[in-house]
Amino acid sequence: MAPGAISQQDVDHLPIKLNGKANGHSDTAPVEDIKMEDNELTKKVLGTFRALIADLCHQFKCGHPGGAMGMAAIGVALWKYVMKISPHNPNYFNRDRFVLSNGHTCLWQYTFLHLVGFKQMTWEQLLTYHSVRFDSITPGHPEIEIDGVEVTTGPLGQGIANAVGLAMATKHLGAQYNRPGYELVNNMTWCTIGDACLQEGVGMEAIQLAGHWRLNNLCVIFDRNEVTCDGTVDIAQSDDINLKMKACGWNVLEVEDGNHDVEGIVKALLQARAAKDKPTFINVRTTIGVGSKAQGQASTHGADLGEEDIAHVKKTFGLDPEKTFQISDEVYNYFREVVPRGQDLEKKWAELREGYAKEYPELAAEFDKRVKGEMIDDWEKLVPKLEDFPTEETPSRKSAGACLQPIASKINNLMIGTADLTPSVNMAWKGKVDFQHPDLRTVSGPNGDYSGRYIHWGIREHAMASASNGMAAFNKGTILPITSSFFMFYIYAAPGLRMAALQGLQTIHIATHDSIGTGEDGPTHQPIELAALYRAMPNFYYIRPADAEEVAGATLVAIKAKNTPSIISVSRQKIPQYPKHSSRDGVAKGAYVFIEEENADVTLIGVGAEMRFAVEAREELSKSGIKARVVSFPCQRIFEAQSKEYKKSVLGSALRVVVEAYSPNGWERYADAGYSMHSFGQSLTGNVVYQRFNYEGPKIADKVKGLLEEVKKDGVESLRGDFRDLNDYEHDIQFKAYKKH
Amino acid sequence: MAPGAISQQDVDHLPIKLNGKANGHSDTAPVEDIKMEDNELTKKVLGTFRALIADLCHQFKCGHPGGAMGMAAIGVALWKYVMKISPHNPNYFNRDRFVLSNGHTCLWQYTFLHLVGFKQMTWEQLLTYHSVRFDSITPGHPEIEIDGVEVTTGPLGQGIANAVGLAMATKHLGAQYNRPGYELVNNMTWCTIGDACLQEGVGMEAIQLAGHWRLNNLCVIFDRNEVTCDGTVDIAQSDDINLKMKACGWNVLEVEDGNHDVEGIVKALLQARAAKDKPTFINVRTTIGVGSKAQGQASTHGADLGEEDIAHVKKTFGLDPEKTFQISDEVYNYFREVVPRGQDLEKKWAELREGYAKEYPELAAEFDKRVKGEMIDDWEKLVPKLEDFPTEETPSRKSAGACLQPIASKINNLMIGTADLTPSVNMAWKGKVDFQHPDLRTVSGPNGDYSGRYIHWGIREHAMASASNGMAAFNKGTILPITSSFFMFYIYAAPGLRMAALQGLQTIHIATHDSIGTGEDGPTHQPIELAALYRAMPNFYYIRPADAEEVAGATLVAIKAKNTPSIISVSRQKIPQYPKHSSRDGVAKGAYVFIEEENADVTLIGVGAEMRFAVEAREELSKSGIKARVVSFPCQRIFEAQSKEYKKSVLGSALRVVVEAYSPNGWERYADAGYSMHSFGQSLTGNVVYQRFNYEGPKIADKVKGLLEEVKKDGVESLRGDFRDLNDYEHDIQFKAYKKH
Repeated sequence: MAPGAISQQDVDHLPIKLNGKANGHSDTAPVEDIKMEDNELTKKVLGTFRALIADLCHQFKCGHPGGAMGMAAIGVALWKYVMKISPHNPNYFNRDRFVLSNGHTCLWQYTFLHLVGFKQMTWEQLLTYHSVRFDSITPGHPEIEIDGVEVTTGPLGQGIANAVGLAMATKHLGAQYNRPGYELVNNMTWCTIGDACLQEGVGMEAIQLAGHWRLNNLCVIFDRNEVTCDGTVDIAQSDDINLKMKACGWNVLEVEDGNHDVEGIVKALLQARAAKDKPTFINVRTTIGVGSKAQGQASTHGADLGEEDIAHVKKTFGLDPEKTFQISDEVYNYFREVVPRGQDLEKKWAELREGYAKEYPELAAEFDKRVKGEMIDDWEKLVPKLEDFPTEETPSRKSAGACLQPIASKINNLMIGTADLTPSVNMAWKGKVDFQHPDLRTVSGPNGDYSGRYIHWGIREHAMASASNGMAAFNKGTILPITSSFFMFYIYAAPGLRMAALQGLQTIHIATHDSIGTGEDGPTHQPIELAALYRAMPNFYYIRPADAEEVAGATLVAIKAKNTPSIISVSRQKIPQYPKHSSRDGVAKGAYVFIEEENADVTLIGVGAEMRFAVEAREELSKSGIKARVVSFPCQRIFEAQSKEYKKSVLGSALRVVVEAYSPNGWERYADAGYSMHSFGQSLTGNVVYQRFNYEGPKIADKVKGLLEEVKKDGVESLRGDFRDLNDYEHDIQFKAYKKH
Repeated sequence: MAPGAISQQDVDHLPIKLNGKANGHSDTAPVEDIKMEDNELTKKVLGTFRALIADLCHQFKCGHPGGAMGMAAIGVALWKYVMKISPHNPNYFNRDRFVLSNGHTCLWQYTFLHLVGFKQMTWEQLLTYHSVRFDSITPGHPEIEIDGVEVTTGPLGQGIANAVGLAMATKHLGAQYNRPGYELVNNMTWCTIGDACLQEGVGMEAIQLAGHWRLNNLCVIFDRNEVTCDGTVDIAQSDDINLKMKACGWNVLEVEDGNHDVEGIVKALLQARAAKDKPTFINVRTTIGVGSKAQGQASTHGADLGEEDIAHVKKTFGLDPEKTFQISDEVYNYFREVVPRGQDLEKKWAELREGYAKEYPELAAEFDKRVKGEMIDDWEKLVPKLEDFPTEETPSRKSAGACLQPIASKINNLMIGTADLTPSVNMAWKGKVDFQHPDLRTVSGPNGDYSGRYIHWGIREHAMASASNGMAAFNKGTILPITSSFFMFYIYAAPGLRMAALQGLQTIHIATHDSIGTGEDGPTHQPIELAALYRAMPNFYYIRPADAEEVAGATLVAIKAKNTPSIISVSRQKIPQYPKHSSRDGVAKGAYVFIEEENADVTLIGVGAEMRFAVEAREELSKSGIKARVVSFPCQRIFEAQSKEYKKSVLGSALRVVVEAYSPNGWERYADAGYSMHSFGQSLTGNVVYQRFNYEGPKIADKVKGLLEEVKKDGVESLRGDFRDLNDYEHDIQFKAYKKH
C-alpha cells in the first residue's frame, strides 16, 4: 500500500464523535440538540420549494428546474439546520462557506437565500430569474457579486477546487491565528456537486489534494441523481465512486432517500463537521425533477416543465394546481430562526475576538489587518532596487525569485505554490514552511503544517489555479495566492485563470520558460499562441518583463492590482540586463520608451526575453545610418488604460516593428509590421532555437531596412491595413509523419 | 454499489488464460512459449542501456536521464519480448501502438528504437540528443514525425488519453471489419506513465473512460519511481492508486522489482494482453536514476549526472568507467530477432488480408480504402445544397447538424462525439449506434457496441480532445474524429486541440453557443477571448460561419483539411439566412465580399452570428446616404493563405470596421476600427444580451458615421496605428462583490 494510504478499517469505521468538543470544532452542536421540525411541516416545505422552482422556470419558459427540485432536502438540511451563516451580514468572517459546484442549479441557492432572509434576494429579485432585466441578481449561474454566493460557478468541476481553496484558507488562517480557547477561524466549507464535477479532471485533481491535505473542514455533497444531459450517467460512467473517494483519502457517507430524508442528511452533515482528519463525501441519492411526471429523466434538467406537468407537481405535493408562487407563512416561519441564530454567532465571535485582542494584542492587530484585507507590513520596501540586481545576463525567472522571495518571506498574506516545479521556478524562499497536514512526514522532506505558506500542488495546474481562486475569495485581500509553472502549462490552468478575471479575484501567476527560448523541451513546451489568449482576456494582466528591473515593475503592478489577476511571464534562459534603459515605472504604464532617438526612422517594439533582438537590431541599423528608437512593451492591457497623449508619445509616428517570438495576433494594433512566429517551435537549446527561427539582430535589421525602403515613397501611412510579417523562415519539420504514409 | 461497479472478487482474481485463443487475441503466445534470455545477459543489457543513457545526457550536459534509466527493464520487456511491431516497416497497420505519456523520458524510447532496428534511428542520430543540429530526430519529447513514435507527448496526462483513443480505434475497426477467422485489427496499445500522469486531471478523465468502455486492449504501465521534481511524490499525493484504478474498472497488477525483473514485467504484460474485459494497469516499482549515486532522488530527473557519478554508474553495472558509449555486439544481438519477427507478423497479416479479400470482397475493398486513409464514399455530395436550407432564421448549430449528420450517417470514417451535450449540439443522426462495450445496458439507453460511431465522452472535454488525437493518429485518415461541446468549454480542451495542431492531426470540433448570444447561461458560458487563442494557434482553423450556407462551406473546408484541426463555431440562437449573399466557396477563401457596393464609404466586416448587425448597420447607414459594403470573414488563417491581390480585393480601400462580440485582438490586422467586447458578458436572453452590449444596427451605424466624419479631412490612412474601439458600453456589474467589503 502506498505511503499515507488509507486502510479499509480506517474507511469503514469512521471514528466520529458527534460532540464536537473533542475534534477541534468546539461549537458543533451534538446531533441530539438539533430539534427537527415535525415531518409533516418539512414535507410541506419541500413540496412548496419544488413547486416554486417549477413556477420560476415556467415564467420565461427556460431555466434548470430538475436539479434544483432534486436537491430541496439537501438545501433544507444545509440552510435551516447546519450552516453557520448570518443572512443579515453575508460577509461575517467566520461563516461557513458554501460552493454550488453544479452551478446550473443556482435557482435552488437563490430560493434558499430568499427563504432564510438574505435581504438582497427579495421576492421581486427571485422573479427576475431568466428575465430580460439588466439589474437582475439571479443570473443563470451563481455569481460572486451576489450576497451569500462565495464564488462564481458554472464551468463544471472547478467548484470543488474552489471549495478546496476555501477550506485551505480556513486551515491556514486557523493555524496562524487560533490560540487555545480562541478559535477565531474554524468554519466549514460545504460544496454540492453533480455527476459532472466527478467526471471533469479538475474535480479529480482537487479531490486528490483535499484527501492529501486531510481537509476535515471540507464536505462535498454529491447530488447523485445519476442523470446528465445525454441520459442516465451510466452512458459514460461506470466507476465505483465511493471506492474512488475512499482511495483518495475521504470519509464516505451515504444517504439513501435524499429526496425526503432531511434528518438523515442533517446527521451526515454533522458527521462531516465532526470529521477528525479527512474531508467528507456524502453520497446522496436524489431524483432529478422529483414530483414531475418526467422525474428521473434528463428532460427535466435544462427546460421548463410545462403547464401540465407543473400542475402535476403541485398535486403531488398537495398544493393547488391552479395557483402559482405559493409560499405560505408557515413556510417562511420554518426558516425564521436562521437570522437570529446568525446574529448570535456573530455576537459570540465578536466577544471571542475581544478576549483574543486582550490576550494576544500583537497577533490580534495582525489578524485585524488581514480581516480588512490589508497587507500586514510595508511590502513595497522589500522589492529589490535597481542597484540590487546583477548586471550580467540573468534568467528572468531568477529575477522573479529575487523580487518575490523577500516579500513572501516577510508578508503573511502571500501563499506561493507550484505545480511541482520548485527547482525551476525559483519561488521557494529560505526558511519557507510547506502547507501540509502537521502529521505528514514525507520521505524526502520538507515537511510542514497548515501555517505553511508554500504549496506543493503536484502536477495539477488546473486545480492549482481554481483552488487559488477559492483562497482569494475567502475574504478579499486576506490571502494573495501566487502560483508557478511553465507558461505553456497555463493552457491547462486557463479555465481557472479566466474565472479569476471574471470574478475580479487577485491571483498572481509566475509563468516561467516563456517563448521559444525555453529550448530543448521543444514545441510541446514552447508557447507560441498562448499569450494571445491572456492578452484578449478582459480584466487580466499578461506582463512580459524584459529584465530584472521590469520584473520588479511587474511585481509591483501585480500586487497592487487588487481586482485583477496577473501572469508575470519570465524566461528560462539568461537575458541581458538594461539598467540604463529599463524602468519599473514604465512597466506600470504598460509600455514606455526604452531607448529614445530624435527623428527616428523606425520604432522597434521589444517584448520580454526578445528585447535583446530589438536592441541588437537597433545597433545593426545604426551601422547603416538608420535611426531606431526602442519601446519596451510588457503589458498591452495596462497600456490601453493610459491617456491618448501618453500612448502617442510612446508609439511615435515612425514605422513601428514589433519583435516577439510569438504569433503576432493583437500587435497589429500598435505596429505596422511584426517579426514573429508563424509556426510551432523546435527542440533545440535556447540560443540555437532563436537562430533556427531567424531571431538575430542582423537578420531583423535587414528586414526592417527592406520595409523602410519600400515605404520611402508612399510614406508609412501606406501600411495602414497592410500589416507585414517580416520573419519568413521556412518550417517544414512538422507533418513529416504524414508524408511517410 | 453503483451500477456497473466492480466487485472486490472481480478485482482480486483475474480470470486470465494465457493462451489467448479464448479471449480475442488469437495470436498471443502462451507465457511458456516465450524464451527468456539468460539472466546474466539481460543484466548486462540493462547495465549497458543505463550507462548509455547517462553518457548521452552528459554530451551536452542536459537531458532527462533518471526516468530513462529507471525504465530499462520495462523497455526490454516491451521491445524485445512483447510488442508486436515491425521495425523495418514502422507503419505496419496492425502493429501494437506504444505511447510514452511520460514524454520527458524520450531518450529511453529513442535508444530502444535504435537497438531493435528502426532504420531512421541511427547511432549518429542518437548522438544528436539535445545537440544543436536542426535535423535531429531526437527532440526533448517524442514527436510523431519519428518512425516508431505514434503520438507527440510531453504535456503530462495527455498521453493516457491518446492511448485510450488508439485503443478505441482498434476496438472500433475490429468491430467493423473483423470476421470469424479474420482478425484484421487486434493490436494492443501500451502506454507508460509516471506519477504526474495520474495527478493531471486529463489522465483521470481518460482512465475513467477506458474503464467504462472496458478497453481490454489497453495496458498502462506505471513507472512508479515515486519521485517528481519537488521530491518524493508523497509531498503532494497520498491516495491509494491501485484501489483507485480498481474503482475505475481496471485490472491491477504489480511488479515489485521493476529495476531488474524483466520476466516479471513480461508476464504482467502478457496478462494484460490476455485481459478479458478490462484495461490493465501494471504498477511497476522502479528507482529513478538506478545505479547512480543519487538514485531515488529528484536530482537525477532532469540534469546530467556528471562525470564522477557516471563513472559510478558504469562500475555498478560492471562496465569500464573510463569508456563512453559502450554497446557490445552481444547487446545488439540480444535484440536481433525483433526485425525478422516483425517481418513474419507482416507476412502473416498480408496472408490474412488476402484470404479476407476472397471471402469478403466488399468489406475488404472498404477496409483497403480505410487503410489508405481515404473516405469510403463520395461524401461531398452529402452536404446539403444552398436550396436545401430553410430561409427563415435558424440557429447555426442546427445548420451544423444538417450538414454533418448526413455525412456521419453514411461515411464510416467519421466518429462523432459529445461532452454530454447531445440535445444541444445536434450531432446525433437518426439510427446512430453508440460506441460502447456490447454488453453494456444503460438505464436510459441507447446502448451500442464497438462498431458504433457516436461517442458519449461524459463531461470530460480535455480527454475528449486528447483521445480524439489518439484516434486520428491510429492511421492517417482512417478515422476522422469529430467532437462537440459549447465553445466556451473548448478552453478545457485547449491543451488537446493544441497537440492536434502541432501534430497535424485532423480533428473537427463543433463548438456551439459561441459569443454572448449564448444568453442566459451568463458570462461563465459566453466566450469573449477564446477565439483569440485559436486564431493565433499555428496550423489551426477557427471558422465562424454566418449562416447555413457558410456552415456548409466550413464543413467542406474542415473535412478537406487533412493535416489541420478545425473548430466550426456556431450559434445557439437563431440567426438570419443570407441565400443571396453567402457562399460556401467564399468560406474556402477565409473571407469574401458579402454585399458589394461601388465607391463604398466603408467596409463592414461581419463575423459569424454577428453578421446580422453588420447587415443592419449597412441598411441604417444607407438611410443617411452612406454606402457600406459588407465582407464576411469566417476564418483568418485561411484568408492569410490567399493571394495578395485577392486579399486586397476583399478588404477594399475604404474605412474598415469589424463587428463581432469578442475581444478585438487580431482584427487590427484587417480593420481600422472594431465594434467589439471589452468586458465579460452577462446573463440575459440572447437578443437582450446583445442589446445590453449595444449590438444594434442603428447604434453601430451611429459610431461608424462618427468615425467617417472624423477621418473625412485627413483620409482613412490617418488611422494607421490608431485602431478604434467603437463600442463604448459601460459595464460595472462585475466586482460589486468587492465594493461591498
